[in-house]
Amino acid sequence: MNRKRLRDLGITIGKFPTGKFNALTDVAGVRVGQTTLIYDKPRIARTGVTVILPRDGDIWRDHCFAGTHRFNGNGEMTGVAWIQESGLLTTPIAITNTHQVGLVRDVLVEYGRAQADALPWLLPVVAETYDGILNDIDAFHLKREHVLAAIENARAGVVAEGNVGGGTGMRCHGFKGGIGTSSRVVSHNAQAFTVAALVQANYGKTEFLRVDGVPVGRELLAQRAAALNREQGSIIIIVATDAPLIPTQCERLAQRATIGLANVGGHGHNSSGDLFLAFATGNHIPHAARDLIALQMLPHNLLDDLFDATIEAVEESILNALTMAETMRGFQGTCEALPLDAVIEIMKKYQRL
Amino acid sequence: MNRKRLRDLGITIGKFPTGKFNALTDVAGVRVGQTTLIYDKPRIARTGVTVILPRDGDIWRDHCFAGTHRFNGNGEMTGVAWIQESGLLTTPIAITNTHQVGLVRDVLVEYGRAQADALPWLLPVVAETYDGILNDIDAFHLKREHVLAAIENARAGVVAEGNVGGGTGMRCHGFKGGIGTSSRVVSHNAQAFTVAALVQANYGKTEFLRVDGVPVGRELLAQRAAALNREQGSIIIIVATDAPLIPTQCERLAQRATIGLANVGGHGHNSSGDLFLAFATGNHIPHAARDLIALQMLPHNLLDDLFDATIEAVEESILNALTMAETMRGFQGTCEALPLDAVIEIMKKYQRL
Amino acid sequence: MNRKRLRDLGITIGKFPTGKFNALTDVAGVRVGQTTLIYDKPRIARTGVTVILPRDGDIWRDHCFAGTHRFNGNGEMTGVAWIQESGLLTTPIAITNTHQVGLVRDVLVEYGRAQADALPWLLPVVAETYDGILNDIDAFHLKREHVLAAIENARAGVVAEGNVGGGTGMRCHGFKGGIGTSSRVVSHNAQAFTVAALVQANYGKTEFLRVDGVPVGRELLAQRAAALNREQGSIIIIVATDAPLIPTQCERLAQRATIGLANVGGHGHNSSGDLFLAFATGNHIPHAARDLIALQMLPHNLLDDLFDATIEAVEESILNALTMAETMRGFQGTCEALPLDAVIEIMKKYQRL
Amino acid sequence: MNRKRLRDLGITIGKFPTGKFNALTDVAGVRVGQTTLIYDKPRIARTGVTVILPRDGDIWRDHCFAGTHRFNGNGEMTGVAWIQESGLLTTPIAITNTHQVGLVRDVLVEYGRAQADALPWLLPVVAETYDGILNDIDAFHLKREHVLAAIENARAGVVAEGNVGGGTGMRCHGFKGGIGTSSRVVSHNAQAFTVAALVQANYGKTEFLRVDGVPVGRELLAQRAAALNREQGSIIIIVATDAPLIPTQCERLAQRATIGLANVGGHGHNSSGDLFLAFATGNHIPHAARDLIALQMLPHNLLDDLFDATIEAVEESILNALTMAETMRGFQGTCEALPLDAVIEIMKKYQRL
Repeated sequence: MNRKRLRDLGITIGKFPTGKFNALTDVAGVRVGQTTLIYDKPRIARTGVTVILPRDGDIWRDHCFAGTHRFNGNGEMTGVAWIQESGLLTTPIAITNTHQVGLVRDVLVEYGRAQADALPWLLPVVAETYDGILNDIDAFHLKREHVLAAIENARAGVVAEGNVGGGTGMRCHGFKGGIGTSSRVVSHNAQAFTVAALVQANYGKTEFLRVDGVPVGRELLAQRAAALNREQGSIIIIVATDAPLIPTQCERLAQRATIGLANVGGHGHNSSGDLFLAFATGNHIPHAARDLIALQMLPHNLLDDLFDATIEAVEESILNALTMAETMRGFQGTCEALPLDAVIEIMKKYQRL
Repeated sequence: MNRKRLRDLGITIGKFPTGKFNALTDVAGVRVGQTTLIYDKPRIARTGVTVILPRDGDIWRDHCFAGTHRFNGNGEMTGVAWIQESGLLTTPIAITNTHQVGLVRDVLVEYGRAQADALPWLLPVVAETYDGILNDIDAFHLKREHVLAAIENARAGVVAEGNVGGGTGMRCHGFKGGIGTSSRVVSHNAQAFTVAALVQANYGKTEFLRVDGVPVGRELLAQRAAALNREQGSIIIIVATDAPLIPTQCERLAQRATIGLANVGGHGHNSSGDLFLAFATGNHIPHAARDLIALQMLPHNLLDDLFDATIEAVEESILNALTMAETMRGFQGTCEALPLDAVIEIMKKYQRL
Repeated sequence: MNRKRLRDLGITIGKFPTGKFNALTDVAGVRVGQTTLIYDKPRIARTGVTVILPRDGDIWRDHCFAGTHRFNGNGEMTGVAWIQESGLLTTPIAITNTHQVGLVRDVLVEYGRAQADALPWLLPVVAETYDGILNDIDAFHLKREHVLAAIENARAGVVAEGNVGGGTGMRCHGFKGGIGTSSRVVSHNAQAFTVAALVQANYGKTEFLRVDGVPVGRELLAQRAAALNREQGSIIIIVATDAPLIPTQCERLAQRATIGLANVGGHGHNSSGDLFLAFATGNHIPHAARDLIALQMLPHNLLDDLFDATIEAVEESILNALTMAETMRGFQGTCEALPLDAVIEIMKKYQRL
Repeated sequence: MNRKRLRDLGITIGKFPTGKFNALTDVAGVRVGQTTLIYDKPRIARTGVTVILPRDGDIWRDHCFAGTHRFNGNGEMTGVAWIQESGLLTTPIAITNTHQVGLVRDVLVEYGRAQADALPWLLPVVAETYDGILNDIDAFHLKREHVLAAIENARAGVVAEGNVGGGTGMRCHGFKGGIGTSSRVVSHNAQAFTVAALVQANYGKTEFLRVDGVPVGRELLAQRAAALNREQGSIIIIVATDAPLIPTQCERLAQRATIGLANVGGHGHNSSGDLFLAFATGNHIPHAARDLIALQMLPHNLLDDLFDATIEAVEESILNALTMAETMRGFQGTCEALPLDAVIEIMKKYQRL
């Protein structure tokens, strides 16, 4: 069966409608760019980088609010100290492999300086998961030009999923993982707010994999080799919304990503780097402002729908990574794609389709 | 149908065996005592207090390690600053209604001073959830003697569940909630460790209630009045283990309670006080030690089973609160018990029984 | 010598002007009320409670932003979980002795329910320091009516300092401590912002006491009995400002209180509960708002003056507690007031006067 | 006057004796290596990297406990998520300029993989301060070989201070700053513990500079151009001890670095990245342990001397950076060394010498 997004299999998560592209880019001004490296010589490459540009790339000068959450810290996300201190996202966000967070981070510094030389220093946000099973990670394949290319090709609209960008060589619940994304639209009074997620999914044991509550992992394990069932990695989750939140509220959204992850079967195992970031574009905080800044704030007691929508978008993002990623042969062997036919049969068995 | 614990309905959560009582008291030395106030005159009382005494009550002098986690902070847990600073649990733990945290806290101070007058000051851990729907909470029913009675009746062995102690007037996912508990045993090499949970469950919307992944809440809502589906409260989760953990590891266990809660349908809504505490009795830290203290530590890379067991125990504790609690008429109306027959039918419909 | 505020001794801290009363009440709408219990029969009382009412008492409905900081956690401050979660201060603040935090907290719940019955539950902020040396703390002297009296007598204008309210029986750097307060005014463009502090000072070893950098404690120790030089307690610091800050910025102000404390000689010793809270009245967040709330925010890069002013106000508040508190005979002996003549001589010796 | 360490000027901070070298290397097994880049062509370089190797370089396999603290987060320290999660330091620590944190981080990954290929991934700790005033930071001078050279030349014993390593181009309180270090020895019963600090000092306004409480900055400002008095940067503080602490206690030591910084005049201004890390070598936590690990713990109530010693060591480290750094001409002008003769005169004026 060809790879499909979860919804195209007839499986729907939750109750809220999606945005136009069911993607992070449904939040206006958010662009996603990716560079994918797949080659076998001279050393095997299955890696890449995914870049998120809020504000159509002008995040350096037109900051937005953000917050982070650490569900399990066996991983890296640079730039977090300033987000925790200031509540501001001031740079693009990139996700790559574990060994090359530094390269990507310094290239973003160089790029940002060229974009906005009024900013003497920059503290870019770069996160990672480990692709060393499929990718010869010690070859340090990624170069400066690959990062710049991802920035250059960043676009609104459809986001490629599965074996692309930073997610190229990733594995999830024993199957091929990678990049996934999804969005939701919630309405309050006459206003609609979009909440969206993008994940680089590389975590999880097969036995805990669930699709909308159905124990798909246990069923697949019964059908297949138990050898799949190893914990192996991490997940980075980025949540975006156009709602006018303050930093405290962004932290709350980031923390709610935990529930979306739990719904698919993430337990935050010891070797996992489960680091989440949420940003909200509804307020504009200009760099080096010299006067009081006018803001808006969604009251806390109206946040529940945004929480629920975050949970749905995260859950579907992870499942999209699984249903879109293709079987990949790589450095230390082959990682199978999630078998969509089998998943559908299991969903039928449990009266969900 | 009479009330039963979840397992007595034939529903099993997870893969690990339970301890002897499937309760928090399966961790050696942990005692639980409860005072339940149910009367209608002069004002309607549906409240109480649940007390947990580690070290057979000698926690004042023989401290253990502990850690906390805030999933959503619309609630109170006293004593947290010292746990965060020192990693030590130095007092009993009590859970009661929102308006009387202070009374219970001061009575624990008084009691502790009588037990251990070498301790000039005490910082007891007291948490709460809100029972003002079924209980006339402004009557401040609980008195000093009720707290002392709960301490006096604290026992090892079977723990009463449902409409008892601090959980007397609580509601959960639109049905009657309250106190629930469960335990798991995990083995490593020749050693077995017990992980157990006790919850005071008073949170959640009906639509999100799930039992082992089955959308029981959605099904019940389709059968019944939608009016049930209001967010209303909070959940306090206490995790205990006899494994020799250090404080950092206790925090990790406390945070994993989030996943157990997520599995039942907790989203950490805005009005919820979802505060968790985990303590580990495997190390002994004497009060006012004057010499180096010998400790043991379970390596981080052996924690995954404890994480998984925590998740299972929390999930089953909440479900036990729901399946054990009985329909209650109270201050502002009647709260129905979770209909066990209907739950079993739904589990059968989804091929789980 | 009669007791005087620090400035009346000719000693000035820092560079910013003070507000009208050089007190927390210089922030418009902030009222302070205190109940002081001093009697010897039937048991010795040297205790009390200090209450801070923002918004002229209407904080229950007209919330302001706030943030907290834990410098050392051997103490209690209730209500912190909700402040960390929401960034909101929603109740008055009270400070009392260690054993009676609970009483004060529950009375504030009762009072708040009477003021604003639309609020089903309340999570009051009550903090403490330990007065068990001068006060027979196990007598639990404070009663409901004393808390209500402090609320009733809360006023704008001059704030009593030294042996009053929650500070009645406190000690600081080996001398008599208690309540102290101070304020600063900073200007930006055409706007002036007030930053003010109130402390309940009960911490510190004599050897570390410094006044504007001068080692007053070492000098006094050389003149007096070394027996004074014991660590004994804690400090609660409340910072208020009328600047339009967001919660993240309030946390930053709260953390800066550490520097003011350090300047006097606070090291955050193990037995100390050094818990700080900052609130900012410049934004209004109505309870149960149903629409977007308009806010203002002072840009981060304009905060440095507020940081410096916070540091000055905290430092002077602690010194005011010391210079205003009088010698007190109590439960376990007598605690001498800081000898003002000697301090002046020392300041002269070091060329500061 | 030639540059001297603070003690060689006759100025002593605090009461505890120093270790043999009055340096971070007084903690057994701790090595420090530095690469310094100073040249004018083709572009002006005033930068470098300082590397700290605990366990004589074997930290990859023989972990120690650690904790971090953020006093102000306008900066970067990688590797913090895993320290917060696990309490473990598992890699060397490096400090460099703001733009090249990434390079240094990835080189440490490469180096670590070569040292210990059983470790699939590594999360190195690399921090930074901004040297863009004296260093043409956009030239990205530092290369892979410079990082490896610093690792290679890491030694026990004397540590070079001032314009060396990561501190080469740094400024502090308006004068030339850079690397500084100091240590203290505290004794308990028959045991002696060493506490030491190393700082990369690049923060502070001249007006707040104090030496042992004396307002040296204000005096120097009165003598010199006020133009010096700009906030400009950050400070990274590394604290090490051989005491057997647990992670919670390391966090407490890291937080106490705030007081040492405050004593010199650090206010944590908005543009400052004041990030601290403390590690304790007294316990050994082997990588990939499969059995219970035996630990020792210094009781909390014996920590006060370690807190005080940390404060002293940090304060003296910063002052050593200032007194050892020489005047430097660089990218955007010249930064004067702290005038030692003038400092001595000021100390005499205030009766300290």
